[in-house]
Amino acid sequence: DFKNDFAYILVIGTTDISLIPGITIAGATPELTHFTPAADAEYIILGKCKSINTIPVSPSGIPTPALVTRAALSFINPLKLVVNAGSRVLPKIPFIDLQGEPGRDIRKYALSLEKVNSIIENGMKLGEELSNAFKVLVIGESIPAGTTTAMATLAALGYDAIDKVSSASPDNPKELKRRVVLEALKSLPTDLNQKLAKVSDPVLLGVASISLGFKGKVLLAGGTQMVAAAAIIKELNKNKIHDIVIGTTKWIIEDKSADMLGLSKQVGVRVLVSMLNFSISKFDGIKAYEMGYVKEGVGAGGSAIMAFIRGITNEQLVEKIDELYQKLLSSNA
Amino acid sequence: DFKNDFAYILVIGTTDISLIPGITIAGATPELTHFTPAADAEYIILGKCKSINTIPVSPSGIPTPALVTRAALSFINPLKLVVNAGSRVLPKIPFIDLQGEPGRDIRKYALSLEKVNSIIENGMKLGEELSNAFKVLVIGESIPAGTTTAMATLAALGYDAIDKVSSASPDNPKELKRRVVLEALKSLPTDLNQKLAKVSDPVLLGVASISLGFKGKVLLAGGTQMVAAAAIIKELNKNKIHDIVIGTTKWIIEDKSADMLGLSKQVGVRVLVSMLNFSISKFDGIKAYEMGYVKEGVGAGGSAIMAFIRGITNEQLVEKIDELYQKLLSSNA
Repeated sequence: DFKNDFAYILVIGTTDISLIPGITIAGATPELTHFTPAADAEYIILGKCKSINTIPVSPSGIPTPALVTRAALSFINPLKLVVNAGSRVLPKIPFIDLQGEPGRDIRKYALSLEKVNSIIENGMKLGEELSNAFKVLVIGESIPAGTTTAMATLAALGYDAIDKVSSASPDNPKELKRRVVLEALKSLPTDLNQKLAKVSDPVLLGVASISLGFKGKVLLAGGTQMVAAAAIIKELNKNKIHDIVIGTTKWIIEDKSADMLGLSKQVGVRVLVSMLNFSISKFDGIKAYEMGYVKEGVGAGGSAIMAFIRGITNEQLVEKIDELYQKLLSSNA
Repeated sequence: DFKNDFAYILVIGTTDISLIPGITIAGATPELTHFTPAADAEYIILGKCKSINTIPVSPSGIPTPALVTRAALSFINPLKLVVNAGSRVLPKIPFIDLQGEPGRDIRKYALSLEKVNSIIENGMKLGEELSNAFKVLVIGESIPAGTTTAMATLAALGYDAIDKVSSASPDNPKELKRRVVLEALKSLPTDLNQKLAKVSDPVLLGVASISLGFKGKVLLAGGTQMVAAAAIIKELNKNKIHDIVIGTTKWIIEDKSADMLGLSKQVGVRVLVSMLNFSISKFDGIKAYEMGYVKEGVGAGGSAIMAFIRGITNEQLVEKIDELYQKLLSSNA
């Protein structure tokens, strides 16, 4: 199935949880995390960022996985569409607007019910429309602290998810995440959409609803966040899960601080893994992925899978990543 | 070429010129004209309107050409994407945002230079991205009073266009349009983008820029407005005009109050005509097209051409239009 023509969809959004110091490294500072989704989207579409003057990097300078995605997709050249489910910073590129809103702090209330319904309705209609032209969608995400809201969403849907989601950092701030999630789960509504309004984020709803509306096969390109998206899909249409496969990276599967395979099994969603090996890169910033930095994001794992099944080798992919990274370093110099 | 897979793109926007009483009948009242683009887009995507409680109708109740487009496309089911170049009312569906702005009164200044550049840049990037998946685009427009801004734009670009654009009304308010356009052309800047910023509208820029960025063939689905879009394309890349064909209706060509073929010849753009015949419709509101009401819009002529070249007959198309119109009448009853 995944050898068919596909469109790559990047769903972006923000959650105010990313402003909590220490909870995510998907941005050089907590405030900059809100620029990451827009900058990732610009990099994927333009090959450069406009909202910030470099590509998103972690506090220690490790580059966004958007680099991996752009490299992998460059071998295939699918249609790439950016979908804004609710980002505080809008990317300076054409994007599809689901008319959602940025996610607020889940310890209070993340989204209004009206906006949850708007994201779901518009997402489903977009998925349905894309079915007219594509048999497969590859859907990535970019939302700093999205693993925390994913943990809260999975737990709110009754899954054993506390301490089981991964992190872009080699030392997963599990203690901080647990405290935030347990507080968010207090006085949880019983109605599904109300639950999602309280503890989820716009990107999970965007990814899930586009998948629900799409008639073909969907590769959810991401880690534990995509397990949460699959869980939402299952709540809204339990048969749809059979058309869904998660595609991620080996670093997510090997992440001892999380339980990607256990969570996927609980939800009942299949997982494909791209055996990426960045140790052969010329750059420390890329090699760092091998030490558990970043691990996944912006559809990197799924995009690599789509390149690999079309005959691209790990060496070719890493060579392209180094080439793109070199271009960035020289343009910044 | 046009038998290839295509995507249908509807570019929507508003111009404050449509608020001038008597200048357009693309809305039941001048104020309602600003809802027409959003409602047309909703009807194309959803088969119903959300921003207003019926489909857009002229003051005498004649239905929007979106009906014709939806009927024609229903035989083909292409991917349909709505692009907002600058509409005062946002449609309640997923749409692609070019981050433009609504057009102000061209007798003062329609758009800021910054927004002209934003629409053009984002439109070209969207066209380029769509080239990864499609060989052909069919681009329609919905912007009440768009023929007035088209006349101003063509004249500003040096074409003999005064009194030559058509109208959705059988009695083309030529006197009023001429007065508005001649006033708008006073103190016209010499720089191209400044000229467009003064007298054009967001939709012309959106249509032209998407066409410019697209690498395949483009069917500009519309009447004299599409001649203005072609003129803008030619200004920005004169070779691109060879990949452009206008597809419109016989009513536009037969419109004695305008000069579609003369204008097209001046600009040097080819025109295809769909020989629609609505006299066989069961409904007066549809038959009225034969008396010069509405004539074109929302990509009706081009969509009909795409259906006809795929073997659909006029009878089949009119039968489908009547079926959709009946559905609307009963849902309104």
